[in-house]
Amino acid sequence: MSIEEKLKEYNVKVNARLGELLSNYDPDYPVITEAMGYSVKNGGKRIRPFMTLLFSELCGADRFDSRALDFACALECVHTYSLIHDDLPCMDNDDLRRGKPTNHKVFGEATATLAGDGLLTYAFEIIADSGATDKAKVSAIKALSELAGYKGMVGGQVMDMIGESKPLDRREYEKMNALKTGALLRCTARLGLSAAGCEDAETYRLCDEYCACVGWAFQIRDDILDVIADQSEFGKPVGSDEKNGKTTVLSYMTLEEAQNLAAQLTNKAKSALEKFGRRAAELCELADFLLHRRK
Amino acid sequence: MSIEEKLKEYNVKVNARLGELLSNYDPDYPVITEAMGYSVKNGGKRIRPFMTLLFSELCGADRFDSRALDFACALECVHTYSLIHDDLPCMDNDDLRRGKPTNHKVFGEATATLAGDGLLTYAFEIIADSGATDKAKVSAIKALSELAGYKGMVGGQVMDMIGESKPLDRREYEKMNALKTGALLRCTARLGLSAAGCEDAETYRLCDEYCACVGWAFQIRDDILDVIADQSEFGKPVGSDEKNGKTTVLSYMTLEEAQNLAAQLTNKAKSALEKFGRRAAELCELADFLLHRRK
Repeated sequence: MSIEEKLKEYNVKVNARLGELLSNYDPDYPVITEAMGYSVKNGGKRIRPFMTLLFSELCGADRFDSRALDFACALECVHTYSLIHDDLPCMDNDDLRRGKPTNHKVFGEATATLAGDGLLTYAFEIIADSGATDKAKVSAIKALSELAGYKGMVGGQVMDMIGESKPLDRREYEKMNALKTGALLRCTARLGLSAAGCEDAETYRLCDEYCACVGWAFQIRDDILDVIADQSEFGKPVGSDEKNGKTTVLSYMTLEEAQNLAAQLTNKAKSALEKFGRRAAELCELADFLLHRRK
Repeated sequence: MSIEEKLKEYNVKVNARLGELLSNYDPDYPVITEAMGYSVKNGGKRIRPFMTLLFSELCGADRFDSRALDFACALECVHTYSLIHDDLPCMDNDDLRRGKPTNHKVFGEATATLAGDGLLTYAFEIIADSGATDKAKVSAIKALSELAGYKGMVGGQVMDMIGESKPLDRREYEKMNALKTGALLRCTARLGLSAAGCEDAETYRLCDEYCACVGWAFQIRDDILDVIADQSEFGKPVGSDEKNGKTTVLSYMTLEEAQNLAAQLTNKAKSALEKFGRRAAELCELADFLLHRRK
């Protein structure tokens, strides 16, 4: 089975569990759960839940382990909240997300703001309510709150905003991405390993290195696709970064250098998992798949 | 020592700890921690942290127990995030909060949105990083995520928004308040008791009843003060609810009936804590103090 087929197989499980978790309507205010569900269900590739589940399996959890699945869904709620708030008029002011109207276009700004708040809060409830041990829950909540918060993803959003008024230099751009997109990718390892009850510091370190490399390669590929992709396939206007005067990796290196760097990072990611042998095969295939993705 | 003096004494500890928790600046994006700190430091009465600490003492914790203090600060971060988002132009569009410019007036809407997101996320990090047991942390996180989320405070905000386009009836108004302000007050008991390691279901039930009654009495007093208060003392324009066509408790009862109801609720709150005797003295004094407050 190819890694793409495997991703689809896992997505079926993730989507089913997200559907269950987001089916709790109160007749006095159904709009909030509708708004939360709207954006969660308009899912993308679901790379983060997939990685969370693969990391739990790397450490001996069963396929689709219910605790890892809940941790994965919590992470997807945090990712979705960040997209809803990022799309707001006061932030990126986007009308479309994955080809569909953004949350505030459908539900209005106030409800969209609250739907984001609701999803972020719910992520912690999902973890606290899961079947994991208290130790695993606390470990997961520590990871999620650190990496999604002001020292992580939220910090990255702030740097991204700063980058709109003055171009970021290379160091700043790489840091911004390490926070804005890298932090949640690193969370996949922390959550997956926590769910599996892993307590080995070296395993956490190696998986974190894999995530940091894959996260940076992912962003480089995104910057490349913004220039070379077929618009209908990529899902957002091609060339929009340059037009918007945004710093990208191509602001300071050529297309060829960028693709080489992404390939090097992918190799480094795979090397980090060498000691796990065959058990890391899917995570290695995933790194290659992300390096060559067309959208 | 009067309960007001005691509240001030506790506030010194709470403010000092909040100051420590919010002093972590990153030179690449200092604005996010400045924005988070700005609103946290522009504190109100700090009733919620005070109650959290009193509940922990009710169950045998030392005065200013460091775990209860951290849980109290986490709750104050959640309360503050809710005010920042509530003040945004797409929500209540308020320029002033406690006599000072609101967060988005100082830092802009995008940063204010992110500062709220950052505070909400940080609340869970504070609990996860505290010195409490894993069991106490999970219990606190469960309480906070349930009561602050879409089934609690966020749900109340949504009902409040609905109430702006069509008047709420009495049942809806009471439910809206139970969610919007009552939920976080109920959180004080759950957090304080969790910090103290309480596992007695009856204690949780009685303290929850106290909080629910005090919360509702608090809102009734707020509605009354909106009509009778001295504007300079109350801190927001008097009579603004009626002018804005908002449902208040005075939409369906007289001033006298409302004050009587608040007094009954205060008695009910105190009765709920009867079995704790002298140990609940301060919580009982606090209920009386809130009933008669002038601002």
